[in-house]
Amino acid sequence: MEQRKILLREDEIPRQWYNILADINLNPPLGPDGKPVRPEMLAPVFPMNLIEQEVSTQRWIDIPEEVLGVLNIWRPSPLVRALSLEKALGTPARIYYKNESVSPPGSHKPNTAVPQAYYNKVFGIKRITTETGAGQWGSALAFACSQYGIECKVFMVRISFDQKPYRKSMMATWGANCVASPSSETRAGRAALEKDPNTPGSLGIAISEAIEAAVTDESGQTRYALGSVLNHVLMHQTIIGLEAKKQMEKIGEYPDIIIGCAGGGSNFAGLALPFVYDKIHGKQVAIYPVEPAACPTMTKAPFVYDHGDTAKYTPLLAMHSLGHAFVPPPIHAGGLRYHGMAPIVSQLIDEGIMEPKAVRQEQVFKAGVLAARSEGIIPAPETNHALATVVDEALKAKQEGKEKVILFNWSGHGLIDMAAYDNYFAGKIKDVELAEAEIEKAEAECAGYPKPTHLKHK
Amino acid sequence: MEQRKILLREDEIPRQWYNILADINLNPPLGPDGKPVRPEMLAPVFPMNLIEQEVSTQRWIDIPEEVLGVLNIWRPSPLVRALSLEKALGTPARIYYKNESVSPPGSHKPNTAVPQAYYNKVFGIKRITTETGAGQWGSALAFACSQYGIECKVFMVRISFDQKPYRKSMMATWGANCVASPSSETRAGRAALEKDPNTPGSLGIAISEAIEAAVTDESGQTRYALGSVLNHVLMHQTIIGLEAKKQMEKIGEYPDIIIGCAGGGSNFAGLALPFVYDKIHGKQVAIYPVEPAACPTMTKAPFVYDHGDTAKYTPLLAMHSLGHAFVPPPIHAGGLRYHGMAPIVSQLIDEGIMEPKAVRQEQVFKAGVLAARSEGIIPAPETNHALATVVDEALKAKQEGKEKVILFNWSGHGLIDMAAYDNYFAGKIKDVELAEAEIEKAEAECAGYPKPTHLKHK
Repeated sequence: MEQRKILLREDEIPRQWYNILADINLNPPLGPDGKPVRPEMLAPVFPMNLIEQEVSTQRWIDIPEEVLGVLNIWRPSPLVRALSLEKALGTPARIYYKNESVSPPGSHKPNTAVPQAYYNKVFGIKRITTETGAGQWGSALAFACSQYGIECKVFMVRISFDQKPYRKSMMATWGANCVASPSSETRAGRAALEKDPNTPGSLGIAISEAIEAAVTDESGQTRYALGSVLNHVLMHQTIIGLEAKKQMEKIGEYPDIIIGCAGGGSNFAGLALPFVYDKIHGKQVAIYPVEPAACPTMTKAPFVYDHGDTAKYTPLLAMHSLGHAFVPPPIHAGGLRYHGMAPIVSQLIDEGIMEPKAVRQEQVFKAGVLAARSEGIIPAPETNHALATVVDEALKAKQEGKEKVILFNWSGHGLIDMAAYDNYFAGKIKDVELAEAEIEKAEAECAGYPKPTHLKHK
Repeated sequence: MEQRKILLREDEIPRQWYNILADINLNPPLGPDGKPVRPEMLAPVFPMNLIEQEVSTQRWIDIPEEVLGVLNIWRPSPLVRALSLEKALGTPARIYYKNESVSPPGSHKPNTAVPQAYYNKVFGIKRITTETGAGQWGSALAFACSQYGIECKVFMVRISFDQKPYRKSMMATWGANCVASPSSETRAGRAALEKDPNTPGSLGIAISEAIEAAVTDESGQTRYALGSVLNHVLMHQTIIGLEAKKQMEKIGEYPDIIIGCAGGGSNFAGLALPFVYDKIHGKQVAIYPVEPAACPTMTKAPFVYDHGDTAKYTPLLAMHSLGHAFVPPPIHAGGLRYHGMAPIVSQLIDEGIMEPKAVRQEQVFKAGVLAARSEGIIPAPETNHALATVVDEALKAKQEGKEKVILFNWSGHGLIDMAAYDNYFAGKIKDVELAEAEIEKAEAECAGYPKPTHLKHK
């Protein structure tokens, strides 16, 4: 029996998050006046302790004991040597993955949902609102809120609400209130329903509803939570990479290549950022965020200032963007259907520290099925994007006869997303290559905004 | 941060299963002639190496390296101190659970699916057939077969096939062929369809189809696999209890009470049997298998000789039985809807070593929701039965002011069974108390069969 899993004891869990803002420079978020957003301007939306984390440049931020005491329900997560996948590919590469599917909701999302719920609690907040597309984030926040006795309200995009009933059942079991968006509970929702009573909804509308529900609560005890993109969210996720580093050290390994799927960027960055620190300080390591070719934010879209949401409620963020009005084609990886990309990831791509890859759906699901039949775990459709690139790199190592060490993030399991596999087996997963015209449209959309500066790390 | 999980390293995984037939006496299975079944009579159904395990009285059976090398995808499973549940109940009891939800299909079932697939492979078998009700067993066998490159054919009860589409998607992803039963592929299936083209199917028919598909394959390279009830299945599951013992030893604990839900009996026995050995040898430990009050096999049905299936294909087994024609009410725990009980568990109840409990559905789901909101993991509906008794015992310990140590089996997660929770929240989970007349019917059904002897352990 060859060892598969490299485990950490609970007392080896990292005690601090890594904040990359100590080591890189970012173009600041801009307000409607074109000037940098001041922290207090965000106070109606987020609790001040999280806003402080968002702008902090302190390298190491202590993880509160009360957060560790919930994270340890499933953390430290296993680092796994993908022995069976290696064998199936006949590669000399040694492939490792962080198994983030082991959390109760089945993905990496609770790594930030838990601290976000905690900091809201400490700040005296009684109720958190959020939006969710496919449902991974909404169920993670519902789980986290149940741990701290906070009310949780989730606006779930109508079409997913109808197509993925298990997600809302999970949220209900954890005590959250999940409604289909657009709902009649907000002005934004009512306006959308008036325009089209049969609308399938969109993430843009759901975000508007969740923010409105938070800022209009007169008690002042409601705030909004976001599951990706922001600096503090990526920082909470660094626990993945910090654990992975400890685990690889235990067996005397260091990755040549780091791979993760990237929608908003948080699971990928969570694994990669602690290694980016090494790279800035001289280590050789290739770092590949992976996206669907149908939503090529990182590989084709320009690096611009754009809004994070369709309704332009958010500040302007310096990022790779397909334009805030872009509607991604309906590929089966809800978590990767986002027009923008986390400013931190966008900056690291712009600086050349990360090298994005785009993969096609056929190849994505082929890799996912191979992984399920070898490693056993059925991956989330999002994770399959990372797997497609892992397979590519492992086969390249085979061709070159090189013993590459590949590390990737198994961001979640697919047990609630089996319809995507059904569609794949039925030959219904079609790839849509994005037309050049769409990219031009994105550029035109952001043409009136300020241009971000090309920055270098500190 | 208080420690929750007691982990074993992979090199601490048990190397042998515990075979309780070394320590207890069983009434033998009887053939149609009323005489004990000889091993070779089962050869068309099971491979001979598994039949040998079924009848072996050797106390320790080596687990093959090739089996350990697949079990270590998820094993050893964590032993978890249920700190948050204890706190929610305000109990002085220390509650521990084995988390068997961490396997790729999400339950304890692969603990036996993996060795069964392996022994079939070694015996030269190319294809395994089975039936599945709710789908836990079918998906576990699909996963196991994918690990050894064996074809897997699953006959899934029609109504579940339609209501739980994710289960068949999981099986397809692992490469298995899953069809609705009754199917037109077998004589038994065609007969059932002829009788009623719109039949919802039944486990009885599905078993008949799976056995027929195995024994009628002229190549001789197909066998049938069963997911519970049989001696070798319970033995494969003892890895749960053997690990639990090691883990409790590490922290200087020993259980006062052991609890598990019991349908066919395998997850419960897997945890309990290694502790039954201790009890036989003088240790004080209370052992409670738990069943739904709506299907009270252990608490109300007689200890008789009866068939394991509706169609009377199986030998007569000495067990607690509600009668082979009994159709359990449609409660939402498919794994607990079985008219009989494993002969080993039945024998241990008859001898007074185990004390069965029956719980009602309202209490079952209330406990499940409490567990989800405290421990985080959404339990399988089956596991909720164990949890209901855990809550009872923990509250009793509180009343008595006693520091009881409770150990139970978290047999699976409920992510594929969320409809049961929906029904609970909608107030649609109704309990059906079984009428006395049903018990009398069971007794009458088995009246013509031989009577089992009341035996004592060795």
